[in-house]
Amino acid sequence: MLKNNRPALSESEQAAGNGLLDRRLFLTATAAAVGSAAVADHAGAAEALPVEPWMKTPGSPFVPYGQPSKYTSKVARVFASAPGTTGTGASRTPHHLLDGMITPNGLHFERHHSGIPDINPETHRLLIHGLVKRPLVYTLDALMRYPMESRIAFIECAGNSASLYQKEPAQLGVQPIHGLLSCAEWTGVRLATLLEDAGVDPRARWILAEGADASGMSRSVPLEKVMGDALVAIYQNGEPVRPSNGYPMRLLLPGYEGNMNVKWLRRIKLTEGPTMTKDETSKYTMLQNDGKSLQFCFAQEAKSVITRPSPGLTMGAPGLYEITGLAWSGYGRIAKVEVSADGGASWAPAALQEPVLPMAATRFRSPWRWDGGPATLQSRATDDSGYVQPTRSKLIADRGARAIYHFNGIASWAVAQSGEVKHVYA
Amino acid sequence: MLKNNRPALSESEQAAGNGLLDRRLFLTATAAAVGSAAVADHAGAAEALPVEPWMKTPGSPFVPYGQPSKYTSKVARVFASAPGTTGTGASRTPHHLLDGMITPNGLHFERHHSGIPDINPETHRLLIHGLVKRPLVYTLDALMRYPMESRIAFIECAGNSASLYQKEPAQLGVQPIHGLLSCAEWTGVRLATLLEDAGVDPRARWILAEGADASGMSRSVPLEKVMGDALVAIYQNGEPVRPSNGYPMRLLLPGYEGNMNVKWLRRIKLTEGPTMTKDETSKYTMLQNDGKSLQFCFAQEAKSVITRPSPGLTMGAPGLYEITGLAWSGYGRIAKVEVSADGGASWAPAALQEPVLPMAATRFRSPWRWDGGPATLQSRATDDSGYVQPTRSKLIADRGARAIYHFNGIASWAVAQSGEVKHVYA
Repeated sequence: MLKNNRPALSESEQAAGNGLLDRRLFLTATAAAVGSAAVADHAGAAEALPVEPWMKTPGSPFVPYGQPSKYTSKVARVFASAPGTTGTGASRTPHHLLDGMITPNGLHFERHHSGIPDINPETHRLLIHGLVKRPLVYTLDALMRYPMESRIAFIECAGNSASLYQKEPAQLGVQPIHGLLSCAEWTGVRLATLLEDAGVDPRARWILAEGADASGMSRSVPLEKVMGDALVAIYQNGEPVRPSNGYPMRLLLPGYEGNMNVKWLRRIKLTEGPTMTKDETSKYTMLQNDGKSLQFCFAQEAKSVITRPSPGLTMGAPGLYEITGLAWSGYGRIAKVEVSADGGASWAPAALQEPVLPMAATRFRSPWRWDGGPATLQSRATDDSGYVQPTRSKLIADRGARAIYHFNGIASWAVAQSGEVKHVYA
Repeated sequence: MLKNNRPALSESEQAAGNGLLDRRLFLTATAAAVGSAAVADHAGAAEALPVEPWMKTPGSPFVPYGQPSKYTSKVARVFASAPGTTGTGASRTPHHLLDGMITPNGLHFERHHSGIPDINPETHRLLIHGLVKRPLVYTLDALMRYPMESRIAFIECAGNSASLYQKEPAQLGVQPIHGLLSCAEWTGVRLATLLEDAGVDPRARWILAEGADASGMSRSVPLEKVMGDALVAIYQNGEPVRPSNGYPMRLLLPGYEGNMNVKWLRRIKLTEGPTMTKDETSKYTMLQNDGKSLQFCFAQEAKSVITRPSPGLTMGAPGLYEITGLAWSGYGRIAKVEVSADGGASWAPAALQEPVLPMAATRFRSPWRWDGGPATLQSRATDDSGYVQPTRSKLIADRGARAIYHFNGIASWAVAQSGEVKHVYA
C-alpha cells in the first residue's frame, strides 16, 4: 500500500552521484513526489481524447493460439548463422524492449549447432545406460507419469557478452551484446528420479548427456549436480518445450552454461569420468594468456546488465528516469545489485523485484534524476555466495582477453547530452 | 538435494484413503523408492535406440519470433462466440496439457465483449480526469518513463466454472469448465503513481475504468484498491501485452474478477461513487435465490482444480501417479491445498510448488498410488486469510444456483476401473 503521510523529500534522497536516488522512493513515494516525470499532457486533456476507429467497429475474432501485435514487430530476436549454414549460430533476446523476469517462449535465445530438429515425439526415446543396474528407455508418455517439479531458471550461453573481451567497445546494444540470456519457468522430471529407477552403480561419478540433433551435441556433467537439481524439462512457461528449445525434452542444469542444458535429450550415460566430447574439448573451454585452456567451467558467474536506458533507446528530456536491468548468478540467489551513474565512482543499491529466486533472472530498478549532462551507467551484482561481479579491467587482468566465454564483467552505457546512449569501456 | 539415507517406506506413507501418499515422498524419495512408476522399457534398452531421420540432416533455421511444435497443435484454446458475432465470447486455456504456474501468452484465456481492437499505439491515449486537480493524458511513450513494477498474478473470469451451477455435471473436462483462468507475470506502472501526478481530489472514492474496444467495456473500482496494488500493465510475461490481452495497456487489479482488469485501457475517471455501467448492472452481478442480485463481488474466492488426471486424459496401468493442479485466491496467498481420492472422505496435504505468491496461481502436487479401482479425486484450497474452498453443495446451499458467476466450489473427477476420467458431483 502507498502511504499517504510520506516524509518531505530532500537531498538526502540522493543515494549516489550524478542523480541516483534512493531505491525506496519507488516503494514509499511516487514519481510526482520526487519531481514528476512530467511527460503527461494536461492542456485540455479530456477534450483531446478522440474516438478512434477501433472503437467504432467490432474487433477481430478468437484464435486457438495467440500472437503479438503487428505494431510490436521489432520485439524480435536477431540472429546470425555460420557461413554455409542456416541453423548453426545463435538468436538473441531483445531485452531492451522487454521488462519483468520471464522471457516469453517466442523470444528465448537460441544456440544451435546444426539447426532445429523436427522431432516426432511418438518415436523419440530417452535412453539411460552405462554404469546403471538396468538400462532404461523412456517415451515421452512414460515420463509424463513421473512426479514433476517446476522452477524459474535463467539459461545463459557461455558466449554471451563475448564482445567485451575485444579491445574497443562494440558499438552495439543490449540485444547483440548480452542477448544470449533468457529466463523461463521450466517443469519436468528430476533426472535423479530416473537414475534411481535405473539404479546408479557406485563407480559412476559423471554422466554424458547427448542431444538428438544432427550435431550430436553432448556434454559431460558431474553426477553430484545431476542428483542435486537437474531436470528433464518437458514444459517451458507452462506449455510443451518448443522445438527450438529442445522439444520434446531438454536437460536443465540450473546455473550451468547454456550448452550443457542439452536440448532434444536422447541419451544419458553414467560414467566414471568425463567423456571428453568435441563440445567440451574443441569448444567451450576458456583460453588463458599462457596458451592453456580452462576446461569444465560450469556455473555462469554473477552478472548484471542495464537494459533501459541502453543503446538504441534515446533519452527524452532531462528529469526522472528508471534505470532497470537483469541480474543473475549460477552460484545462487542475487543478494544485491548496485547502480552507478558516474562510471563506478559512487554506487546506489537498486530495488530488487520479488520474487528473488536462486539461478533465476532478477529484475532490478533504480530511480535516476538525469540532469541532462553526460553520465556513465553501470550495474554490479552480488550473489548470496558473496561473489561480486568484477569490473571489466579486473576480469581481463585476472583472465586475459584470449577467452570468448563466461564474460561477466561490469558493462557501461554512456549517456550523452544529446540523449544518445553508447556502449563504452569505463 | 536428494538424500541418500532415506528411511524405509511403509504404510505410514499413506496420507489419506484410496492410495494418497505423503507429499514429502516427492521431496525426500523418488518414484523408484515408493514403487517405480515402472513405465520405462528395460529390455535391450541400448540396442533399441534408433538413429532417427532428424539426426542425419541439419535442422531448420532461426526465426525472429518462435512458435510451438507442429506436434503440439492440440495445445490450443477452445472458444465460442455469441450468435451473429465472431469476437464476443471467450477462449479457454488448456490446463490439462500444461504444467507450472505461468500460462504462456498464446494460451492465456480471453473474454471479449466485442472482439479484439487493432489499436495503433502511436495514437492511443490514456486519460485521467474527473475528481483530480489536473486532468492528464498519457501516451504509451510517456508511460514508459515511469517506474515499473512486476508481479505474477492470476486473472480469472467471473464466469469460470459456471457450469457447476447446473443440476447435472457437464460431461466436459478442465479446459471447457475451468479454462477461464490464467496466470502471467505482468509489468507496468502503478496507477497510484499516475493518480498522484494528477492530484486526487479528497472527495474521490471510486474510479471508472474504460476500455477502447467497441463495446466500451467499463467498470467502477474502489479507490482504495486502485491506490493499493492496481497496475497499468504494459508487459505480459516479459513482452508487450498482446492485442487480445489489452495492447497497448490494460488495468491489472490483482485478485479481482477478470472483466474489471479492463483491457485497452483509455480512460480513468475519479468519482465519488460507482458509475453503474452496463457491465456492472446488466452483467456481472450475482442472482440470488430470492431474485435479488449481489453487485460488486470483486475478489475471486479461493479455489483449486485438479488438472491431471482429468477428463480426456485416460489413465494407464495401475501404479504411482502424480495428482497435480492449480490453486489461487483473490484474498491473498494459498496456504494449503488438500487432495482426496475418495470423494472427500479423507484428505492429504499436497506439496505446493515454490514460489507461492499472493494473487498468483500455485501449482500443487500429490503422489497417488492408484490401485486400479474406482476413485473420486478432489482438491480443496485454503488461503492465508483462512478462507476454505467450499464443497459444491455448501456453495449452492448458501448462494443458490441461479447465479452464473464466482463458482469456486470443489470439483470432482471420477476415475473408473477402465481408466476413464469423468466429471461428477460428489
